[in-house]
Amino acid sequence: MAQKSGIPKGTRDFSPTQMVRRNYIFDTIKNIFQRYGYLPIETPAMETLDTLLGKYGEEGDKLLFRILNSGDYLSKVDENLIKKTESVRLSGEICEKGLRYDLTVPFARFVVQHRNDIRLPFKRYQIQPVWRADKPQKGRYREFYQCDVDVIGSNALLNEIELIQIIDEVFKALKINTVTKINNRKILAGIAEIIKQPDKMLDISIAIDKIDKIGKEKVLEELKAKAIPDEAIEKLKPILNFQGNSAEKIKVLKETISGSEIGMKGIEEVEYLFDYLSDFKLNTEVELDLTLARGLNYYTGAIFEVKVKDFQFGSICGGGRYDDLTGIFGMKDISGVGISFGADRIYDILNEFALFPAETVISTKLMFVNFGTKEEKHCIALLQKIREAGINAEIYPEAAKMKKQMNYANKKQVPFVALVGKNEMEQSIINLKDMNSGKQMNVTLDELICALK
Amino acid sequence: MAQKSGIPKGTRDFSPTQMVRRNYIFDTIKNIFQRYGYLPIETPAMETLDTLLGKYGEEGDKLLFRILNSGDYLSKVDENLIKKTESVRLSGEICEKGLRYDLTVPFARFVVQHRNDIRLPFKRYQIQPVWRADKPQKGRYREFYQCDVDVIGSNALLNEIELIQIIDEVFKALKINTVTKINNRKILAGIAEIIKQPDKMLDISIAIDKIDKIGKEKVLEELKAKAIPDEAIEKLKPILNFQGNSAEKIKVLKETISGSEIGMKGIEEVEYLFDYLSDFKLNTEVELDLTLARGLNYYTGAIFEVKVKDFQFGSICGGGRYDDLTGIFGMKDISGVGISFGADRIYDILNEFALFPAETVISTKLMFVNFGTKEEKHCIALLQKIREAGINAEIYPEAAKMKKQMNYANKKQVPFVALVGKNEMEQSIINLKDMNSGKQMNVTLDELICALK
Repeated sequence: MAQKSGIPKGTRDFSPTQMVRRNYIFDTIKNIFQRYGYLPIETPAMETLDTLLGKYGEEGDKLLFRILNSGDYLSKVDENLIKKTESVRLSGEICEKGLRYDLTVPFARFVVQHRNDIRLPFKRYQIQPVWRADKPQKGRYREFYQCDVDVIGSNALLNEIELIQIIDEVFKALKINTVTKINNRKILAGIAEIIKQPDKMLDISIAIDKIDKIGKEKVLEELKAKAIPDEAIEKLKPILNFQGNSAEKIKVLKETISGSEIGMKGIEEVEYLFDYLSDFKLNTEVELDLTLARGLNYYTGAIFEVKVKDFQFGSICGGGRYDDLTGIFGMKDISGVGISFGADRIYDILNEFALFPAETVISTKLMFVNFGTKEEKHCIALLQKIREAGINAEIYPEAAKMKKQMNYANKKQVPFVALVGKNEMEQSIINLKDMNSGKQMNVTLDELICALK
Repeated sequence: MAQKSGIPKGTRDFSPTQMVRRNYIFDTIKNIFQRYGYLPIETPAMETLDTLLGKYGEEGDKLLFRILNSGDYLSKVDENLIKKTESVRLSGEICEKGLRYDLTVPFARFVVQHRNDIRLPFKRYQIQPVWRADKPQKGRYREFYQCDVDVIGSNALLNEIELIQIIDEVFKALKINTVTKINNRKILAGIAEIIKQPDKMLDISIAIDKIDKIGKEKVLEELKAKAIPDEAIEKLKPILNFQGNSAEKIKVLKETISGSEIGMKGIEEVEYLFDYLSDFKLNTEVELDLTLARGLNYYTGAIFEVKVKDFQFGSICGGGRYDDLTGIFGMKDISGVGISFGADRIYDILNEFALFPAETVISTKLMFVNFGTKEEKHCIALLQKIREAGINAEIYPEAAKMKKQMNYANKKQVPFVALVGKNEMEQSIINLKDMNSGKQMNVTLDELICALK
């Protein structure tokens, strides 16, 4: 009986053409990372739930894919707990591992685990898939690739500057026009302090962060639901309504939160960035966006988000500074900053705007038609020499009908077909057909290699 | 409180140096796959358990990592079943997905799912990790990379020949001396028929397959345990004792199983391969090994396994023909054949024999020492031009003590360090230090670019 043959919801296969296009994105990003002195690492798909839980907020924890313990996993669980049939509590007992949710937390775990082998500041990049049990929708997948670049062990704001340079170079190379939004968690903390809700900084950040997605009114409702008093919400409104350019915003902001030390520190950092960047010729438009919060728990300083200019679409890159991500793993006072490029969304954008280079089909350069055992053996000897010359080439695996073989070559977009029958064998020549022009000519092996190389 | 920061048992992190070495293996293999006309695909890490279960034998099913359903997964399960606390039955109700166990079954699922978009024969390669809940031990990991190359939709034995050519080229390129063992499941079926145990073919294969690991006596015990009668086991013994070269083995075998049609078909196929290969100059030693069975359920014809010559180590490549793997997904009569290279074991071998090329450290080519804000800005302008010229370069992110900065460059194996202080700024020069020789000299920006390119 035939089984269903689908793949899990929210996941995808990649065909050869898609692979080449994805590699174009990965290679572009990778080269620029390396250009700035970042080195590659990889971490396993699975991490312990100890490592993963509590780093992404309550919502993040729910989106983790958990892996069932092997063997008789129930035998180690208290029977009464099982009988309570509480999903969340039971999962804590029957799962020890989960699939990574991002590349930043595994990186922090990596740094702590290999602290004796690496030297700080450590500049690394990492390009691997991550998994989230999100509701699948257009542009949102349950398995997707992140391309992360981080430097850990340096407080210098020069690192933030460098990451903006990298953002600029990547999207310039990919020909995508972008806006880079910048904010600082310290400013958000300052605001929370000023409205006398210092403990609610994260709630406020998360709510404000949704302003693009759900609108201002819904954000205000959410703040209310989080028990932020009306009076405080009232004080927040001017910030949600902020207009003007970055310099003007900073001016207003300075007046509003001058009473908060941490808030003023945040403003100082933002001003430093804008001042430094004014010397650069950037393609990306850098702007201060106070509604930018980024939902992740671990950010403490600068935060970034990159959007496609004049196009409604999710962010294609984002990140920020985290002052104590390794602290939770036992290595205190190590600050890091990094950004993550969303390869899948970038793919969709390049597709949407037809920005992939023309050279995104790979195939064999040459296919030999198979005329039967005797010819086949002759062709295989030729093929060995052709491949040694670095040319990708194949022979149709059986002496099928000519039409079938030519259809195969066509469908695979093989540009040249070689026909070597009895006559050609006797004369030591190859009848070479150019599949685009349809022209055929007789060539020697050396001429063929020369022509295709 | 500090958490444990370990990674799950049997999994590994890869440092920059390891990454470069792994990429050397992947790139070598990938290039040869492409040289023979194979195109890349990728499939998701997760597959439905419908797709995975029953393809790898009973033992394989147990080694699957299962992913817990999201949300209130228990609410959909009959309460009585939960209270029975049977791990295996419950996992069938609370998990719908698993991590892929190999790349062959996902490939079969891919072919069926995309049947309208691909043209047979379809030649694909796939390099991705797989996961098995095996007991971790030296050389055996729970997450490891497979490099698979398969052709599906062609019965021709030329495909088997081509795969042996690929094996030969890959290990020649990697400078590993190998023995390629060949057998055929049809011969094993013939043997089972002749000893009148046709239904026990798989049990016999699996038992025989272990001869290298557990020895002949234990295999005989296992056969007994599988209810193979003594009389039949007696008839098997000569095959377990087989000596001589491949031609001699074939001769004896022909006499033994001449009464089995399928067995004789298997011999015919093996003879064809050896005959064909005798025309080639191969580095790998190809030999018939009747104790080779390969545990996987789905093989039906030729089977392969590659070992390192004169060195006790697990197989580093293996595969075979499967006549109906897509059938289970509803696409009948499609035969495929493929092999899988074990990148992790190959890595261990290259390490063991010091076969990695010297050029396996990547780093930044040049580091600027950071003397303070003013110099930093000057250096960043220089860096932009250096990077535009395609040179990987960085600046230390803060004006730390000189010793600290030089230590960083040393540890990262950066070959050149640039010192640009007040004097150099004024003279528009760069003081360039060769970290290997210790020599320093003043150069212009153009000279520096020219020297490092």
